[in-house]
Amino acid sequence: MQKSLAELCDILRRFGMKPVIRGDERCEIRGIATLEEAQPQELSFLSNPRYEKLLGTTQASAVVCKPDLTAPASLHLLCVDDPYAAITILIVECLGYRKHRLPADARVCTQDGIGLPGAPAVVAASARIGRNPTIYPNVVIDEGVEIGDDVVIYPGVYVGPRCRLGNGVILFPNVTIYDDTKIGNRVTIHAGSVIGEDGLGYAPFQGRWAKIPQVGSVELADDVEIGANCTIDRATLGSTRIGAGTKFSNLIAIGHGTHIGEHCMFVAQVGLAGSVEVGNRVTMAGQAGVVGHIRIGDGATIGAKAGVTNSVPDGETYLGQPAIPVRDMKRQVAHVMRLPALNEAVRTMEKKLARLEELERRLAELEARAAQADGG
Amino acid sequence: MQKSLAELCDILRRFGMKPVIRGDERCEIRGIATLEEAQPQELSFLSNPRYEKLLGTTQASAVVCKPDLTAPASLHLLCVDDPYAAITILIVECLGYRKHRLPADARVCTQDGIGLPGAPAVVAASARIGRNPTIYPNVVIDEGVEIGDDVVIYPGVYVGPRCRLGNGVILFPNVTIYDDTKIGNRVTIHAGSVIGEDGLGYAPFQGRWAKIPQVGSVELADDVEIGANCTIDRATLGSTRIGAGTKFSNLIAIGHGTHIGEHCMFVAQVGLAGSVEVGNRVTMAGQAGVVGHIRIGDGATIGAKAGVTNSVPDGETYLGQPAIPVRDMKRQVAHVMRLPALNEAVRTMEKKLARLEELERRLAELEARAAQADGG
Amino acid sequence: MQKSLAELCDILRRFGMKPVIRGDERCEIRGIATLEEAQPQELSFLSNPRYEKLLGTTQASAVVCKPDLTAPASLHLLCVDDPYAAITILIVECLGYRKHRLPADARVCTQDGIGLPGAPAVVAASARIGRNPTIYPNVVIDEGVEIGDDVVIYPGVYVGPRCRLGNGVILFPNVTIYDDTKIGNRVTIHAGSVIGEDGLGYAPFQGRWAKIPQVGSVELADDVEIGANCTIDRATLGSTRIGAGTKFSNLIAIGHGTHIGEHCMFVAQVGLAGSVEVGNRVTMAGQAGVVGHIRIGDGATIGAKAGVTNSVPDGETYLGQPAIPVRDMKRQVAHVMRLPALNEAVRTMEKKLARLEELERRLAELEARAAQADGG
Repeated sequence: MQKSLAELCDILRRFGMKPVIRGDERCEIRGIATLEEAQPQELSFLSNPRYEKLLGTTQASAVVCKPDLTAPASLHLLCVDDPYAAITILIVECLGYRKHRLPADARVCTQDGIGLPGAPAVVAASARIGRNPTIYPNVVIDEGVEIGDDVVIYPGVYVGPRCRLGNGVILFPNVTIYDDTKIGNRVTIHAGSVIGEDGLGYAPFQGRWAKIPQVGSVELADDVEIGANCTIDRATLGSTRIGAGTKFSNLIAIGHGTHIGEHCMFVAQVGLAGSVEVGNRVTMAGQAGVVGHIRIGDGATIGAKAGVTNSVPDGETYLGQPAIPVRDMKRQVAHVMRLPALNEAVRTMEKKLARLEELERRLAELEARAAQADGG
Repeated sequence: MQKSLAELCDILRRFGMKPVIRGDERCEIRGIATLEEAQPQELSFLSNPRYEKLLGTTQASAVVCKPDLTAPASLHLLCVDDPYAAITILIVECLGYRKHRLPADARVCTQDGIGLPGAPAVVAASARIGRNPTIYPNVVIDEGVEIGDDVVIYPGVYVGPRCRLGNGVILFPNVTIYDDTKIGNRVTIHAGSVIGEDGLGYAPFQGRWAKIPQVGSVELADDVEIGANCTIDRATLGSTRIGAGTKFSNLIAIGHGTHIGEHCMFVAQVGLAGSVEVGNRVTMAGQAGVVGHIRIGDGATIGAKAGVTNSVPDGETYLGQPAIPVRDMKRQVAHVMRLPALNEAVRTMEKKLARLEELERRLAELEARAAQADGG
Repeated sequence: MQKSLAELCDILRRFGMKPVIRGDERCEIRGIATLEEAQPQELSFLSNPRYEKLLGTTQASAVVCKPDLTAPASLHLLCVDDPYAAITILIVECLGYRKHRLPADARVCTQDGIGLPGAPAVVAASARIGRNPTIYPNVVIDEGVEIGDDVVIYPGVYVGPRCRLGNGVILFPNVTIYDDTKIGNRVTIHAGSVIGEDGLGYAPFQGRWAKIPQVGSVELADDVEIGANCTIDRATLGSTRIGAGTKFSNLIAIGHGTHIGEHCMFVAQVGLAGSVEVGNRVTMAGQAGVVGHIRIGDGATIGAKAGVTNSVPDGETYLGQPAIPVRDMKRQVAHVMRLPALNEAVRTMEKKLARLEELERRLAELEARAAQADGG
């Protein structure tokens, strides 16, 4: 894209909005990104006041925001009453959004390792496939896809428009790869997994949920292995990323915009919300969950079924719901286990303490007597 | 269906049962439904004594039950030793059950936005498709399906017999829609999700699990969006329902006969058992679970990983396992966190209390002395 | 396979290893299996010292292990520095591993209940299919598959090389069956489930995860029903097994090498790690999880969301995280609920105890006076 702030205002006005510019309306915008990921000459947005501090560090040139916002003087502001609605319109109008259409000129392939006689794989004419492919029947490869050498694609796989797959990629049956996904070399994805579906991005609008177009993508680095029936959301803007050598078991859900480091190991049914930052060599045990917008440090271990609600430092092991360091959790569990004994101790003390009043009574009597003796 | 109670008894006798009618054997039955959903002239059943109170409110005309049941005089009773086995037989014999068969006269479509040259979509001759479809290769649309205008159906989707899809529906790759599912306008279902599979309905029978035919269906209202790899059970009888504008993330499981209201938001990996009633504008955070046969009130919020075992009032926020109101849960967590300090306090008191006995000893000595003094 | 220990050493040497044999290098090896499952003339391996005690009971003839291992004299040892790396090499070299290739001579079937005119199912020439099949278009049945009578296979199903399916099996749409899976009679698998994907088997190797080839398989016994979008890992060696009559709901994950008994009932989103032994008639409620290498006894019930970390005796009901017997858990919950009251009681006591010091002061005064009186 290449549009001035003035032109962006024109677009919003066409949708009935009343944008006001604080700054230079001639500022040229070449992309849209989150405050954290935006580069110079890119537009970002601030809707949730929680992220206002990011205004001080963002490299974005301009920001869509509410009229009353205080921001660094270097930022050009495009002020509207509903920044979320405005950025949604600008994303769709400027970046475009998934267009559902049959590949205009699909080739039906039944040779050279692609499809079988009478049972084709469908490959768009604009797709490029490297040497020595093994592509089963009932595979559909959409427009503009680029695929490396020695890939194996089992039946029922769909590879959406403009995806890129490296060398030696293996996609087991019924895997779905949404548009614009980037997959590195020697990546294996087991059956039924879905890469790049829309994240759960909605803004409340007049008592309903208005969809925020998810125009970001997913990037899987080299040597990633994904188990069966996992789901990895595409980012709203930018990308959801999984680092080199990271391995997933089955039924794992990764939210939009989450970044996972290298050589991690995720056990089955783990769930990460959106915008989580996971370091390298992190282990997530089965059924663990992580809330959005926090960081799991390098080398951290998250125990089975843990519910992580705060950032975890490098190298720590966290357990429990809410998750806390393992030493604290073990102590906590021990204390809870010991509750019956504690209760018993308190009752015993209560009985003993009842004797205190008897003591006071007797002491008072003695004192009275002593006073009497003194006086007497 | 249209059968008298006497005719239903004949059916059961063919299966070796000995039904006895308490009431009018000429009573005409036109359908089978649960006690809660049955209308007049419909048959219901009572197997689990826990639901006996529903006999007082059901609109059913007749009920299959055990011989010794006490019921309102207005209900005609069809008494058998094993009501579950009897209703299972009657469901299959009277309502029919999924017949697996290839569409007898499937058209292979490769034009008008359906399929591609040499790579067809398969559409039963009895299916009707509206204007401007985009239906990819490798889609199968079974007998009697009705589809609205402007639908998009990606490769690998199966739409079972007699399903109805509204206008503007988008089904991403490898979605499975079982027979008789109703899908409203502008519904989007992401890749790999399954709508209408059989619920977990079995009755114990001679040490094994006997399947209860799941002949109900699923209804998704307008503007619902379902994430990737979700599973929504069909109802045993009646329907599983999701209200207008409700949005799901990925890997969510909904049990048979559960009803979800409008404009709800469900985060990834949420699970609801069967026969749950969820109000409007409910938020379920990630990995939360709900047991069967309870109600989540309008506007309620269920926290991440919560395990809901009792009904939640309107507008409340529940957390924890078992889930309790957030204010109680926060207090509870605070108390558990403070357990080490509490333990310490108890120990300190125990030490102090040890001094109590010393006090008593000294006091007794003084008293003895005083008594001696008195006596002396 | 049929190889002497000397020949196996030759293989390892080709990969740069320096194996040493303690025992008879002429010992003939006919298979590779875990210590628990190995038969005479089979090779096993010990990598994790935790399982060293199994050396006393294994029927394996030889074991790959570290050089310093103490083992029964009857076992022939093949000693290497990295037993995991060595067994990985031997598995691939001796047992072979999945070869991805299009069936060389696939028939395109459009008759006799297989495929439809113009919309074929693909069946390898070496596959055998029994009487009265119903096989939809877009099904791929790979080499060497054997299928019984009266099966129903919906669109988008892939059945991998050498799988065996009994009579009356129903596979709903988009099910994936990996190579070498054995499925009994009257088994039903709902849409999107994946049977036999690789388990999460990796060994740490130079800071990365090195894949351990998963060459085992999955066996589903008669009358098993699997819900939608489940994932059942193939075993590393040997097999993952589900016993006759066991029923699964949706989104369930079963780890590699786990064995589940007969007539069990698993509710949605349950997860079992690898090498779990589950008895007969076990109930697992929703979202429960089980760690690896433990046993769940016959007739046990595991509550919703329970996290089972230790073996469960026959007939017991376990709840909570970590899961404990239900009676203990109920008491524990009651104690936690009562924490505010306990806290209050302790505070009251603390106040009372403050009076203890006052008592001591007064008592000391009296004693002083008494002493003075005595002295006086």
